[in-house]
Amino acid sequence: MNDLSLAAARSLDDQDDLGPYRGRFDLPHGRVYLDGNSLGALPKATMARLAEVAQAQWGQDLIGSWNRHDWINSPVALGAKVSGLIGASPDEVVVTDTTSVNLYRLIITALEMQRGRHEVLSEAGNFPTDLYVCEGATRTFGRDATLRVVPRDRVVSSIGPSTALLLLTHVHYKTSDLYPMAEITAAAHARGALVLWDLSHSAGAVEVDLAAANADFAVGCGYKYLNGGPGAPSFLYVARRHQARALNPISGWHGHARPFDFTDEYSAAPGIRRFLSGTPSILANAALEVGLDLLLEAGMARIAAKARRLTGLFIALVESRCADFGLTLMSPRPADARGSHVSFSHPNGYEIMQALISESVVGDFRAPDIMRFGFTPLYTRFEDVWIAVDRLRHVLETECWREPRFAERASVT
Amino acid sequence: MNDLSLAAARSLDDQDDLGPYRGRFDLPHGRVYLDGNSLGALPKATMARLAEVAQAQWGQDLIGSWNRHDWINSPVALGAKVSGLIGASPDEVVVTDTTSVNLYRLIITALEMQRGRHEVLSEAGNFPTDLYVCEGATRTFGRDATLRVVPRDRVVSSIGPSTALLLLTHVHYKTSDLYPMAEITAAAHARGALVLWDLSHSAGAVEVDLAAANADFAVGCGYKYLNGGPGAPSFLYVARRHQARALNPISGWHGHARPFDFTDEYSAAPGIRRFLSGTPSILANAALEVGLDLLLEAGMARIAAKARRLTGLFIALVESRCADFGLTLMSPRPADARGSHVSFSHPNGYEIMQALISESVVGDFRAPDIMRFGFTPLYTRFEDVWIAVDRLRHVLETECWREPRFAERASVT
Repeated sequence: MNDLSLAAARSLDDQDDLGPYRGRFDLPHGRVYLDGNSLGALPKATMARLAEVAQAQWGQDLIGSWNRHDWINSPVALGAKVSGLIGASPDEVVVTDTTSVNLYRLIITALEMQRGRHEVLSEAGNFPTDLYVCEGATRTFGRDATLRVVPRDRVVSSIGPSTALLLLTHVHYKTSDLYPMAEITAAAHARGALVLWDLSHSAGAVEVDLAAANADFAVGCGYKYLNGGPGAPSFLYVARRHQARALNPISGWHGHARPFDFTDEYSAAPGIRRFLSGTPSILANAALEVGLDLLLEAGMARIAAKARRLTGLFIALVESRCADFGLTLMSPRPADARGSHVSFSHPNGYEIMQALISESVVGDFRAPDIMRFGFTPLYTRFEDVWIAVDRLRHVLETECWREPRFAERASVT
Repeated sequence: MNDLSLAAARSLDDQDDLGPYRGRFDLPHGRVYLDGNSLGALPKATMARLAEVAQAQWGQDLIGSWNRHDWINSPVALGAKVSGLIGASPDEVVVTDTTSVNLYRLIITALEMQRGRHEVLSEAGNFPTDLYVCEGATRTFGRDATLRVVPRDRVVSSIGPSTALLLLTHVHYKTSDLYPMAEITAAAHARGALVLWDLSHSAGAVEVDLAAANADFAVGCGYKYLNGGPGAPSFLYVARRHQARALNPISGWHGHARPFDFTDEYSAAPGIRRFLSGTPSILANAALEVGLDLLLEAGMARIAAKARRLTGLFIALVESRCADFGLTLMSPRPADARGSHVSFSHPNGYEIMQALISESVVGDFRAPDIMRFGFTPLYTRFEDVWIAVDRLRHVLETECWREPRFAERASVT
C-alpha cells in the first residue's frame, strides 16, 4: 500500500466484495466504530429474529416451542455453525453459558483427565478472566492443583512433567499477538500436556483451524467478532477423540443422556452435548445465530484476508501520518502474526482515546497505556481506517487531549 | 368454596383485583395454559423492552452502553428486584447464569466453608439437575466430598456431624410439597449444617421469607413464575453474614473487585457481586426485568393468596367432577403446604395429558404417571380452572386418550 490517500482507501472499498455487508448492520450515524472486538455491532436482522422467537414462538407456542421450534437443540445447532468458523467438526462445538464458565468447566475437565499432573500453565498478562477462573478452578479442584503463570517467551519451555494443561489465548487481547496454534499444541502434546485455547479474539477475526492444529479444547466469545449482542453466549470445543472420557464438572440436566427421564442419577450424554448444564437462553441464542449466519455467508477466508488489509492500512497510516507523536506499535508487523485489532501505546493513551471518542472515533483503552483499535471486516471500511487516523492525527497535533475533560477515568472503557 | 359452578368461578374473577394483570400478557387465543410453572408467559411489554435494549442501546450506543445504560450493574439491579419477591435484602441477591451453574457454584462455596465436613445431603426425587450437579460438584471438589440422597421423610434425621450442606427444593417440582423452610433450616443449623434452598418452583408462586428463615443460600429460576422467557437467567442468594468468607469457585472477571484494572490476580469483590463470573446477557436480563417488574407491582402477598385459591378450586373441582376415574391427588391438601401447581397421578397420565393438550388445556407430564397443572395467578383466571377440569372430565369420560395418536411420547413434555 503505497498510496495512503483517502481516495486510495475509497478505491479499496469500491473493489471490496465484502463491502455490501456493511449494509446488513445497524450502525450509529457519523461514528467510526473500532471496538467491535469488544462488542460487535447490531445486525439489522436481529430484531426481527428476536420478535419471531419472542412473539411467535415463546408467546404463542409457549412450552411446546422446545420441540416445535427445536429450542432443545439450539446449543448444538449453534455449535455446529460456530464449528464452520474455527475449523472444527459440527459435533465438536456447543454454544452455552459464558466464556468464564466454559473456561472453568474445561480446566476441571482437563485436570480430571490428567491424573498425576497437577499444574495449569498460563501466560502472565493473559486475558484476566482466564487467570482468575483458573485460580478458582485449581483452588477448588483439590489434589494439589496449581496455576503457574510465566512470561510469554517462557511458556513453551516451561511445559513440564507436571503440566496437565496449557491455557493460552490465541490472539492476545492487548497486543494482538497471535500464537502459532499448531506448533504450540504439538510442543505441549510432546510433553504430555493438553491445551485449552481461548479464541475470544480469534473467532470471526482470523482463520482458525482447530482440526489441523490437533487442538484439544477451546472456548470463545459470542459478543465480539461474532456480533451476538452484549453478553452473548460463549462456545466451547472438545476434540472428538476426547469426548468419551471428558467429563463436564457442572453436570446439569441438559448434559444428561436422557434429561426428560428425570432419574436421580446422572448419565452423561454421548458426545459434545454432555458439556451442557442448565437451560439455555433462547433469546440470547437467537440473537447470536443472526451474527453467526452473517459470518458464515461471508466466509472466514475473505473476512480474515480483509482483516489483514485493514490492520495493515491502519499501521501504515499511523506510522506515516502520526510519526513523531510518541506512539509505539504494540502489535506484530507481519499480518499473519496478528489478530484483527491493532494497539499503540502512548504515555497519555487514556486521554488521547477519550479525545478520539469525542471526535466520534471509538476505540478503547487498556491499562497502563494502550490504545486499541478493532477492525471488523464486515462493517469497517478502508475509508473508516483513513478517517480514524486523520482524526487521531488531529487530536495529537492540536493536543486537545490535554483538556481536563478528557482526564476523567470511567469505570468501563 | 361450596359453589363449583362456572358462574361461581366467573364471579371470583370479577372480584379478583389481580384480574387486570392478565391483560398485561400476550397469551395464545383459545388455550388454557397451565404450564407457567415450566415456562412463564410473554409479558406484552417484553418486546418493546428488547427493542429498546437492542436498537437504541446496543445498536446506537454500542460499547458505551455498559456505562450509559448501566448494563454493568444489571445483575445486581435485577438481584435487588428479585430480593423483594423472596424476603431477602437487595444486597443479598444477584441474577446470573443458569440454575445449574448457580447450584454448582454454591455447593462448592459451602463445601469450602465447611472444612471438616464432607457430605452434601439431599432428597431422593429432588429435581434431577440438583442431584446431577451435586454429583459433579462433589466428584470434582476432592477432599472426599460426597452426595448422600435419602427419602424425604428421613432428610432431617439424616443431618449428621459430617453434613456440610443440606440441598433441598423448597416446593417439590412434581408433588408441590412445600418444606417448612424456617424449621428445616433451624434443624440443620443446630447440627452445624448449612442449607441451600432451590426456589425454582417457589419464587413468584408462594411467599418466601429467607430472612425470617435465617437461610444461608438459595438459587432460583427466571423462566417459570418470573416470566423471564425461555432459559432466562437464574438468581442466587447468599446471606449477608456469609458473604465475606463465601467464595465463588468460578472466579471470573465480573466478580472481581476491580474488573477493569485487568490485573493478573483475582481479588473478590466485596458483597454479593463476587458471585458473578462472566459477562451477563443483557438481552436476557432485559426480558427478565419486565417479568420481575410485573410481579413486584402486583405484590407477592396477593399473588400467593390467589395461588392458594386457584389450586384449591382445582383440587375441589377435580375431586367433585372427576371422581371415580382413577385420579389420585399427589399434592398436599392444606393450601399452605403446597406451591402453585397441583399434581394428580393416573396410570395413563401421559396419554390423558396428551389428549388434554389437544383439547387446548396445556399442563405437563412427569414420569412415571404424574399430570401436573401450574396456576400462575397473574394470568390464570378462576374460569380457566373450571374449563380445564371440564375438559379433563370430558377426556376421562369419553376415554379419547385411548386413541393411538395420544400414545407417542415426545422428547420434551
